[in-house]
Amino acid sequence: MISESMIKDLQKLLGEENVMTSDADRQSYSYDSAVLPSVIPAVVVRPTTTEQLGELVRKFYEAGVPMTVRGGGTNLSGGTIPDSTDSAVILTNALNRILEINVNDLYAVVEPGVITAQFAAAVAKKGLFYPPDPGSQTVSTIAGNIAENAGGLRGLKYGVTKDYLMGIEFFDSTGALVKSGSRTVKCVTGYNLCGLMIQSEGTLGIISQAVMKLVPPPAAQRALMAVFADMQDAADAVAGIIAAHILPCTLEFLDNKTITRVDDFTHAGLPRDAGAILLIEVDGHPAQVAEDVEKVEQVLKKNKATEVHVPKDEAEKTKLWEARRQALPVLARARPTTVLEDATVPRSQIPAMVKAVNDIAAKYKLEVGTFGHAGDGNLHPTFLCDKRDADEFRRVEEAVDEMFDIAIKLNGTLSGEHGIGTAKAKWMEKETSKGTIEYSRRLRNALDPKHLLNPTKMVDILGK
Amino acid sequence: MISESMIKDLQKLLGEENVMTSDADRQSYSYDSAVLPSVIPAVVVRPTTTEQLGELVRKFYEAGVPMTVRGGGTNLSGGTIPDSTDSAVILTNALNRILEINVNDLYAVVEPGVITAQFAAAVAKKGLFYPPDPGSQTVSTIAGNIAENAGGLRGLKYGVTKDYLMGIEFFDSTGALVKSGSRTVKCVTGYNLCGLMIQSEGTLGIISQAVMKLVPPPAAQRALMAVFADMQDAADAVAGIIAAHILPCTLEFLDNKTITRVDDFTHAGLPRDAGAILLIEVDGHPAQVAEDVEKVEQVLKKNKATEVHVPKDEAEKTKLWEARRQALPVLARARPTTVLEDATVPRSQIPAMVKAVNDIAAKYKLEVGTFGHAGDGNLHPTFLCDKRDADEFRRVEEAVDEMFDIAIKLNGTLSGEHGIGTAKAKWMEKETSKGTIEYSRRLRNALDPKHLLNPTKMVDILGK
Repeated sequence: MISESMIKDLQKLLGEENVMTSDADRQSYSYDSAVLPSVIPAVVVRPTTTEQLGELVRKFYEAGVPMTVRGGGTNLSGGTIPDSTDSAVILTNALNRILEINVNDLYAVVEPGVITAQFAAAVAKKGLFYPPDPGSQTVSTIAGNIAENAGGLRGLKYGVTKDYLMGIEFFDSTGALVKSGSRTVKCVTGYNLCGLMIQSEGTLGIISQAVMKLVPPPAAQRALMAVFADMQDAADAVAGIIAAHILPCTLEFLDNKTITRVDDFTHAGLPRDAGAILLIEVDGHPAQVAEDVEKVEQVLKKNKATEVHVPKDEAEKTKLWEARRQALPVLARARPTTVLEDATVPRSQIPAMVKAVNDIAAKYKLEVGTFGHAGDGNLHPTFLCDKRDADEFRRVEEAVDEMFDIAIKLNGTLSGEHGIGTAKAKWMEKETSKGTIEYSRRLRNALDPKHLLNPTKMVDILGK
Repeated sequence: MISESMIKDLQKLLGEENVMTSDADRQSYSYDSAVLPSVIPAVVVRPTTTEQLGELVRKFYEAGVPMTVRGGGTNLSGGTIPDSTDSAVILTNALNRILEINVNDLYAVVEPGVITAQFAAAVAKKGLFYPPDPGSQTVSTIAGNIAENAGGLRGLKYGVTKDYLMGIEFFDSTGALVKSGSRTVKCVTGYNLCGLMIQSEGTLGIISQAVMKLVPPPAAQRALMAVFADMQDAADAVAGIIAAHILPCTLEFLDNKTITRVDDFTHAGLPRDAGAILLIEVDGHPAQVAEDVEKVEQVLKKNKATEVHVPKDEAEKTKLWEARRQALPVLARARPTTVLEDATVPRSQIPAMVKAVNDIAAKYKLEVGTFGHAGDGNLHPTFLCDKRDADEFRRVEEAVDEMFDIAIKLNGTLSGEHGIGTAKAKWMEKETSKGTIEYSRRLRNALDPKHLLNPTKMVDILGK
């Protein structure tokens, strides 16, 4: 579908260096962080201005070229894998300007390709705070975070990306510019297209600009680590903390399998016999933080924490948090394939969910490590396997299938923060309804009549 | 379009008492709180169960009857005025059960017709907090608040209705049940239809259930009133408070015209010479509150507040806040017609906006009183006039037109919290783009192909 003359045309628009057609370049953008087959696109383009981005979309629309936008490529559900070998991949890494940080009005205006951690750092320099902190933050981009509604460790207290999107500009599939939201705290002018674009996985438009909400930073923080002999006690402690009306900014948990794997690798001296560890951080006014720490300690002890450790300084805290940060990389090193899931349940259902995950792993003879955001019920059961072992991988797929059934039964969801992409599309109707899938398909067909925007993702429209 | 046999059918479904066809009944539901002509519907129906609601929608879809859902009827932009004399009005006041308040998982599940203030009170009884507090809260409903993205006094610190909607169930125009979101803090399964339904003004589906987020209540509150000789100083003080990294839970302002009108009526002893008053409330941990009050006082004095008054107790605070609550009713009593606008700007632009409003009022020889939510830039310039005076009302319309131009120039919006409805549809393209209107129209045509869901509201689809 991409002709020689189209390539010439693109080169004229973007400069030769920003139109990549070599095998090596195309292969580099054929996969993302999901365990899914790669698809080599026909061309990879790199617009350097918003005008170029709009012009590109119009050209691809005219020629009927499917488009996959790629930020950091950290997607865990296949959202940035090209749809076909006729597809174009649009890179946003040259659209990475922070256009404004407005300290008086608590917002920032950014281009799509700004890297999240760099954005947060720039905001911090101005004395403000951008809370969303997905695990991918040093690589992933603001528009990628919007397209996936990226979460992170601070979800319980501070919310996720959707809670920070105030305004948006994007090109629809025809290349027409659409604007919604505002630089104001309140705006109800027209449909809430900011809300619609959130977690739309590149299927409803191509983001060209975003207005993000900022908040004043907390004045103080304190961290704690609690060790439990039994997972159930740790889960009860989580519920107890919330019941005490404390919203920690992070409330993370690691199960025994994760603890031992991390300790094997880091020799950090973690409690290898522990059923679970909770890592807790509270923030806010210093007096509030001091009180919260005291209350949290009481709740932890009441729920049979065998040890509660309050790091004395930032260095000691960083060392502790390292165990959490290492969870995924360490588990990923254990076996050739890492299937990282993100079934999410109301937090009171964490004990039931963790038990179910372990029972399922035993049933299918699989190794699973579970860690994640206990405070918001967002677990990351991580199956360690080898995709080349067809029998083992089939068991993983069956286990995941069963796990989602249970998450839904517990009033939870298939995906807390990793997205649907192509990885989880088949389970969507189970959680929602036939009407929901039909509604989504009609919405999508209307907004992308030629089926060019990441067409195989989320709700398949190519088959219809 | 509504036949006798349809009425019989509806009576059979809902009971005779829930199908209203008398002139008096139909007239009661022909208008809302907007200054717009009334339209008498063909029938008014009152489902008492979710199943009846779905069945109703399917019947009206089959028969091609336009539907306007009505909660409290407090809409200020005409969103609850029937579309035609062939329309049905669907009342939600019998679908008013709070189905669950989950203290462990910080959410509640409600039917659409639950009254907001009653919901907030029920939540408070369980020791939790539902922050959105639109002025209409004692009458308006949760689903009405969702459909309009209702704001209120606490927007700056706590956000608006959209920040509290976690999950939704609704019937699409055909009567199929659609579900989105979850009881979990994080959920990215499928399109963010919660976000799409927010401020969709009854045009994309009929809400049958909502999951609302709850938060722990603040431990302490303190209020202050500050008096300024000059509006500009008050506006600078607002900016100064935010610059000091304080987010008050309320930060309200009244201009001189509003102050004198309120004082005429209430004899509350307000400072009649003041250029403006700020009413401020901070909340949170007691130590934080004490510090914030001190810092706020410093900022106020630095910005030439002529008086800063800290009420000693709740009773004294209530008396002060009464002045703010009386602003709209008192202004509304002054002249036969009250045109209450809600142009909203980034808060740093408040001085420019207030000056513009007053200049415009002078130019068009109109009386205007301005009050509103200074903290989030959401102003309520209120034009006092008599609609029967054609010349005066034309001047009001021209003034409003000019006011919106300026709000948009100042990076603001037509509507912070009152909606578009039929009142502001003509200005939408000015704030957004042609592409935005087309995108919205395509979205809507796809989701409501027979044009039955509040069809004349927001983006007109009947003409297309």
